Amino acid sequence: MFADAQSDPSLSEDEFDAQEPRLRTALLKAQYRQLERADRSLLIVVAGIDGAGKGAAINLLNEWMDPRHIQTLAFGTPTFDEQEHPPFWRYWNELPAKGKIGIVFGSWYVPLLLEASRKKPRPRRMTAYANAIGRFEAGLAAEGVQIIKLWYHLSARAQAKRTATLLGSAETAWQVTPADRKVQKKYNRICHAGQHIIEHLNPPYAPWTIIPSADEHMRAVCTAQTVLQAMTHRAPTPKAQVFIAPGIARRRSPDRLGQLDYSVKLDKDDYESELGLLQGRLARAVRSDAFKKRSLILAFEGQDAAGKGGAIRRITHALDLRQVDIHPIGAPMHDELMHPYLWRFWRRLPRQGRIAIFDRSWYGRVLVERVEGFASSADWRRAYAEINDFERQQTDHGAIVLKFWLAITPEEQLQRFHERERSPFKNFKITPDDWRNREKWNQYASAANDMLARTDTDHAPWHVIGTNDKRYARVHVLKSIVAALEKTL
Amino acid sequence: MFADAQSDPSLSEDEFDAQEPRLRTALLKAQYRQLERADRSLLIVVAGIDGAGKGAAINLLNEWMDPRHIQTLAFGTPTFDEQEHPPFWRYWNELPAKGKIGIVFGSWYVPLLLEASRKKPRPRRMTAYANAIGRFEAGLAAEGVQIIKLWYHLSARAQAKRTATLLGSAETAWQVTPADRKVQKKYNRICHAGQHIIEHLNPPYAPWTIIPSADEHMRAVCTAQTVLQAMTHRAPTPKAQVFIAPGIARRRSPDRLGQLDYSVKLDKDDYESELGLLQGRLARAVRSDAFKKRSLILAFEGQDAAGKGGAIRRITHALDLRQVDIHPIGAPMHDELMHPYLWRFWRRLPRQGRIAIFDRSWYGRVLVERVEGFASSADWRRAYAEINDFERQQTDHGAIVLKFWLAITPEEQLQRFHERERSPFKNFKITPDDWRNREKWNQYASAANDMLARTDTDHAPWHVIGTNDKRYARVHVLKSIVAALEKTL
Repeated sequence: MFADAQSDPSLSEDEFDAQEPRLRTALLKAQYRQLERADRSLLIVVAGIDGAGKGAAINLLNEWMDPRHIQTLAFGTPTFDEQEHPPFWRYWNELPAKGKIGIVFGSWYVPLLLEASRKKPRPRRMTAYANAIGRFEAGLAAEGVQIIKLWYHLSARAQAKRTATLLGSAETAWQVTPADRKVQKKYNRICHAGQHIIEHLNPPYAPWTIIPSADEHMRAVCTAQTVLQAMTHRAPTPKAQVFIAPGIARRRSPDRLGQLDYSVKLDKDDYESELGLLQGRLARAVRSDAFKKRSLILAFEGQDAAGKGGAIRRITHALDLRQVDIHPIGAPMHDELMHPYLWRFWRRLPRQGRIAIFDRSWYGRVLVERVEGFASSADWRRAYAEINDFERQQTDHGAIVLKFWLAITPEEQLQRFHERERSPFKNFKITPDDWRNREKWNQYASAANDMLARTDTDHAPWHVIGTNDKRYARVHVLKSIVAALEKTL
Repeated sequence: MFADAQSDPSLSEDEFDAQEPRLRTALLKAQYRQLERADRSLLIVVAGIDGAGKGAAINLLNEWMDPRHIQTLAFGTPTFDEQEHPPFWRYWNELPAKGKIGIVFGSWYVPLLLEASRKKPRPRRMTAYANAIGRFEAGLAAEGVQIIKLWYHLSARAQAKRTATLLGSAETAWQVTPADRKVQKKYNRICHAGQHIIEHLNPPYAPWTIIPSADEHMRAVCTAQTVLQAMTHRAPTPKAQVFIAPGIARRRSPDRLGQLDYSVKLDKDDYESELGLLQGRLARAVRSDAFKKRSLILAFEGQDAAGKGGAIRRITHALDLRQVDIHPIGAPMHDELMHPYLWRFWRRLPRQGRIAIFDRSWYGRVLVERVEGFASSADWRRAYAEINDFERQQTDHGAIVLKFWLAITPEEQLQRFHERERSPFKNFKITPDDWRNREKWNQYASAANDMLARTDTDHAPWHVIGTNDKRYARVHVLKSIVAALEKTL
């Protein structure tokens, strides 16, 4: 596959000069068209043999296009901050907005390349890395991120020659780092690793292109042509099968909300005593040394007026405010709409030793967005698998993820709505939206049942709690959290 | 000053019940009015005696108002990330947008309080902390951030009693942390420290209020009343004298741009050799161990077409892309306009071991915003002192801050504009704005001269470079950076 590049083809000065103005003009035009449409972003992943001039290629793209709309996303050794989050967190954080271009250097391929170029790559790790990359890229592509991947290649001879030339003059010798010399010895292994990766992770929506790099003119023209081609042609969308969630084959989800016991109650004295004791256990658990390497992610969903706010407050009362972040999730803001759906949740995830509480969550996609038609059918159907994967990445990194569906009966909701309307300081909590949602009770219930059937996983379980009695609900929520923490820590 | 609170006043259940609905309704109304106007944000700083119920007060505000528009900004021990930036960085980062409320817990008063409650507070540190806080608050207040500060107070007796009560029951004992018991012994010192701080840092635009906290009803009502008062009354603006920059007294700034030698030149061979050698020295300097504890901040300003982009590229060619961020600065975006002016620059500052290059910078306020009337006269006049302080905070923390004014003559600019217009891939660089700015040549030059006179400091010097000859300019820029790095490291 590297055959063409291995022969180190070159382009004469004249040939290059003939192409440059046309390419630059076309690239700029394509860039402005993309910016104006703002319906997708472009990620250019840069990888390849060391010394092939990846840095120069990135500089070239910045010089040939309008650099104000290009972000160079260069990742080195993970920082402390990054280490406290799942591996893909830093890539999610830096995703460019629609209309923009991101050039990724030190991408998600680095760990896989390192593993693949070991003397004996460990197959299980290779598979795990590759699967994670596959899911990541498919998810982005489905959300309107166009991905192209460039492999900068040159022969071992050209690599050695280039190093010798640079070292030959004091003016250029500094360009050769100690790491560069080491890498030369591993030329064959890196080639092999690259080949493996290009073969296995080359879907039509995120294709690799090999850029012959021994000659700088050739490298420049091939880079520009590949980027131009991507900007003027829409990539195919990943097929729906990529995103099949467990249980999705079942035609009809069990009616968990309908089967719930809404009559359970707790009297006031029991409530206050149990609440205090549970809060104490919660406080101790999250102050423990063991928790310093974990994090806690709580997602609250449920019908309007089911008591999410009250339940959350009973949790936060037991916590040091410096340890917890509460994220009320509403309709996405402008910059959130300009990014893939899960972007805004990735950005709000807690680092180690911390707690994040989501008052409504990433499940909005399969609830309100599904029912109200804000998300296309393909989008919300795909979301179950994406969400399971999203949560899995958190738990794999040590997070404890718990999800609560607080459920009331329609009669109880009506009563609470009326109460809210009557209170001068609670009526802000009730809006025409709430009444509208109520009319779609069954649609929401059915979406919730589907969601529960598809996303109630071992690693991130749902707790479905009847909240007609607020005291019972609050104690039950706390109990579930305390049990999960005490079991894990 | 604590006399009233020291007597631990209380409010009966009946008195409280009579006030609650009115207060809650008024608070909500005020919050929505502020949200609608979106012309200022409110910061509520929470401090005081431990065990006085600060956490409960924060919970109360979240319960009594619409919590979706309140951010609880709780700061603990600085994280690794935070330690790699100046102390105020984390507070700048978290400032709420206009219309919103931020409750600050673990605020910028914590280091000062710790120092003040030492057996022997070190006077120099006390002054340094206090001055930094004074400047920070004055700057925010001038930018439309309303600040109120609440000191939660109770007597030593009430504090001890509260602890004993909590410890008396297994349901509440967990609320007393080991730190709480320690703090009790230091009651007098903390009182004294609080008194000192309230006396010395109590300007009308960021006033302290003492909240009697032994009784929870009293605490709730006083908190609510103070917040309500702040939201319904506009705080005074800090006086202009607070922001006097050095040299600002001079009526007329020296004409540094007029006196510059624009005829200096460098021939091609010398250029290429010098450039390579300087890039090598730059590359080595930023790869050095000594640089790992520093950072480099480069700001580029100058007339349009003076060659900022080209100069910046000659720098980045010598750098590992993973170590550097380039920030092109244009007109502020919506969320930037909703925050104090310097907010967007604080967010882009490099951590230790990293380099940030600003293509246009925070000097926009005293250049384009001044000339075009985007900033009020008070705003840009104030900016000189704010900017000097901003840069000082960076250099105090180990950053190397260098600023470049790239200067061309009007004739050279005209020629470059025409060149750009003629090139199919450079004409994106020339806009009607550029021609308009050119007509205001003298106004911009005069603003630049004022800026140079007021912000050319020892800690963050300006380099004014004639760029009619691009080669000379690029080499000169690199030389200045290398000299500063080699001198410092």
